[in-house]
Amino acid sequence: MSPQRRTGLGTNQEAVRRHNLGTVLRHVHSAGAMSRAELTSRMGLNRSTIAGLVGELEQLGISERAEPAEGVRQGAGRPSAGVRVADNGPYVIAVDLGVDRAVVARVGLGGRILQRAQAPVHADGEAWQVGAAVASLVRAVVEDAPARSPLVGMGISVPGLVRRSDGLIRLAPNLEWHDVSFGAIVLAALGLDVPVCLANDADLGALAEHTRGAGVGTDELIYISGNVGVGAGVITGGHRLEGAGGYAGEVGHLRFDPEGRPCHCGNRGCWETEVGAHAIAEAIQCPADRVAQLGEVLDAFDSPSPALRATGTALGHGLASLVNMFNPRTVILGGYLRSLYMLVGPEVNAGLADRALPAPLESVTLTLPGLGADSSLLGAAEIALEPLFVDPVAALGTALDDVSSRLAG
Amino acid sequence: MSPQRRTGLGTNQEAVRRHNLGTVLRHVHSAGAMSRAELTSRMGLNRSTIAGLVGELEQLGISERAEPAEGVRQGAGRPSAGVRVADNGPYVIAVDLGVDRAVVARVGLGGRILQRAQAPVHADGEAWQVGAAVASLVRAVVEDAPARSPLVGMGISVPGLVRRSDGLIRLAPNLEWHDVSFGAIVLAALGLDVPVCLANDADLGALAEHTRGAGVGTDELIYISGNVGVGAGVITGGHRLEGAGGYAGEVGHLRFDPEGRPCHCGNRGCWETEVGAHAIAEAIQCPADRVAQLGEVLDAFDSPSPALRATGTALGHGLASLVNMFNPRTVILGGYLRSLYMLVGPEVNAGLADRALPAPLESVTLTLPGLGADSSLLGAAEIALEPLFVDPVAALGTALDDVSSRLAG
Ligand SMILES: [Zn+2]
Ligand SMILES: [Zn+2]
Repeated sequence: MSPQRRTGLGTNQEAVRRHNLGTVLRHVHSAGAMSRAELTSRMGLNRSTIAGLVGELEQLGISERAEPAEGVRQGAGRPSAGVRVADNGPYVIAVDLGVDRAVVARVGLGGRILQRAQAPVHADGEAWQVGAAVASLVRAVVEDAPARSPLVGMGISVPGLVRRSDGLIRLAPNLEWHDVSFGAIVLAALGLDVPVCLANDADLGALAEHTRGAGVGTDELIYISGNVGVGAGVITGGHRLEGAGGYAGEVGHLRFDPEGRPCHCGNRGCWETEVGAHAIAEAIQCPADRVAQLGEVLDAFDSPSPALRATGTALGHGLASLVNMFNPRTVILGGYLRSLYMLVGPEVNAGLADRALPAPLESVTLTLPGLGADSSLLGAAEIALEPLFVDPVAALGTALDDVSSRLAG
Repeated sequence: MSPQRRTGLGTNQEAVRRHNLGTVLRHVHSAGAMSRAELTSRMGLNRSTIAGLVGELEQLGISERAEPAEGVRQGAGRPSAGVRVADNGPYVIAVDLGVDRAVVARVGLGGRILQRAQAPVHADGEAWQVGAAVASLVRAVVEDAPARSPLVGMGISVPGLVRRSDGLIRLAPNLEWHDVSFGAIVLAALGLDVPVCLANDADLGALAEHTRGAGVGTDELIYISGNVGVGAGVITGGHRLEGAGGYAGEVGHLRFDPEGRPCHCGNRGCWETEVGAHAIAEAIQCPADRVAQLGEVLDAFDSPSPALRATGTALGHGLASLVNMFNPRTVILGGYLRSLYMLVGPEVNAGLADRALPAPLESVTLTLPGLGADSSLLGAAEIALEPLFVDPVAALGTALDDVSSRLAG
């Protein structure tokens, strides 16, 4: 390929070609591997055009030829060879910032976690301290990255409200952060300049579950994150519900009981005061210093107490409001709500059935995350990978190679 | 134009041309009139292509040449002649089915109400009786339609849950209807075969306000309909939030106070039991037979009683849940909520400010409908007109002319 083609500006044809290149890559990324025949049918382009695009992705080091035996997703007809993501291709750094720990992973196309590391985070830690801890984890996960694999960017999942325009963390209540530029803090601690995107943990959980988890194939889903607080990520019409500033989905502060307990938001009786981690910890007499690990605490239970059953009912009642409001097909319970649902599923289902309107109730399914505890982490990887699906040539043009030595140096 | 071109099937070029024709029409429809220069810049096509498309719309009898003096929306540069919707062009029938009356209008492109009629509806009326009443109103409004103006279709706004796939009314609580094929009933009463679409009144209010009311220019808005019950239509990312079956937006049944009054849905303390028409009527000692005209009753008030002020606060508190959930830029209060907001606006604003999270609160505005009491009616016209914007040639191909004589015959 000539350098002119790689950087060629602005002809309409070139823009269309790059768009198609990104779309081929998005299909391969979603499926992990796909036959050329299936790509041809999904994209509505002819075989020689697809062959050209696939060849270009190979030249760019993004994809490799795959044999049918390698789990290549096939269309109709006999099995054919296809394309899969390259072993030493581009990757991103995904960060799942929790209220008690940070998880960092190097993630490749196809949502493959190539290396991961985690460390505790102190709830009263300042942002720069947490940023330094995350930077150390990043150094650890890129250590074994092949020198020629390019780093495309970094995605960070945040348990709080993130301004869409610039990624500013407006509020992370359980970290007690207000208006923190956490992306810039991490980059400064690393001494690295790569694109960085931040978003809310529930929004990212929804995105990842929609791409490769329990929400594949449905365009109407809600992912509820139980991560000390409770938030929702909503996919509707196949797109993330973001709202005007990116703050949509704050379901934890739905009014639930005006006579209820005080909430950190200043109100009384928000849903979170009944189904948040602190409320559940109280119901099961879990010590305060274990609240952030509530999921693990719940997983150790054999049978639920009446107090825990009541929590399940409250979860179902609040879900009914969401089902009436969004008419989703799938509701995915993530974080410690996953553990709660495994214990008191019948109570949750009954609470929902009792309060939802019949029409939206009849088509909804409650389910567990397909990605276990990694939904938000993999969602962070998705937003960091996104530029590759818009224009792979441009995204690789700004990517950094040999990151391990850069960080060591 | 040759007949072959009008019905020409399937070449890609023909599909693109019809798509562009529909898009030109959508622009002209939204603005009422628009200069060719502005169309050229909005569509990113060259001047001669635009001239060709505009010429074809004129030949089809859909649009006419307009002079700058006629309020043609201009782009930059000096005023230029343009295109406006034709006086005797295609029209639709819009039906706003209320719980006490039906309003029917003949509506042309540009959202122009050409003729309207209304009649009482009895809350205990059966669907076929209401259908017959609506059919009479339709006859009345088409009486003066020019014989050569084609009827494109009918749109019906329903105070209830409408299944998107086929327009079945699943539940219209205040009419006590379950699973009613009201579109077919009206067509049968008319003896007419035209495309008919049904949708929820709040969804249609949102659509119309977004197209030509208080929501023009924002892609994140909520329209709340107060129409005995309370429902919401949500536009997010510029698109209607519909949910899996079309039932999204049932905010009237948000849990509000678990110790509250019983609701017709079977639960207790839904938001509607505090801000629905029956609750407000009770607060102001309005007689039961005037509940359906609550807006007019409220408009006659000079100053609000403490009980009415408390209702305003409850409205604000519930709006806070919606603002936290959807992060809208604009919330439009329609139906009797419009009258309520004019009386107790400060209480509503204070209730909202008290309970919403700061980040979504800072960018939201509460406002009144730009289309007065006609939001849902004009939204019904919008969904009936939609086929014209997808493919005007095909939509005119199935349209009926000389409807007045057909109905008289
Ligand atoms: Zn709260
Ligand atoms: Zn209810």
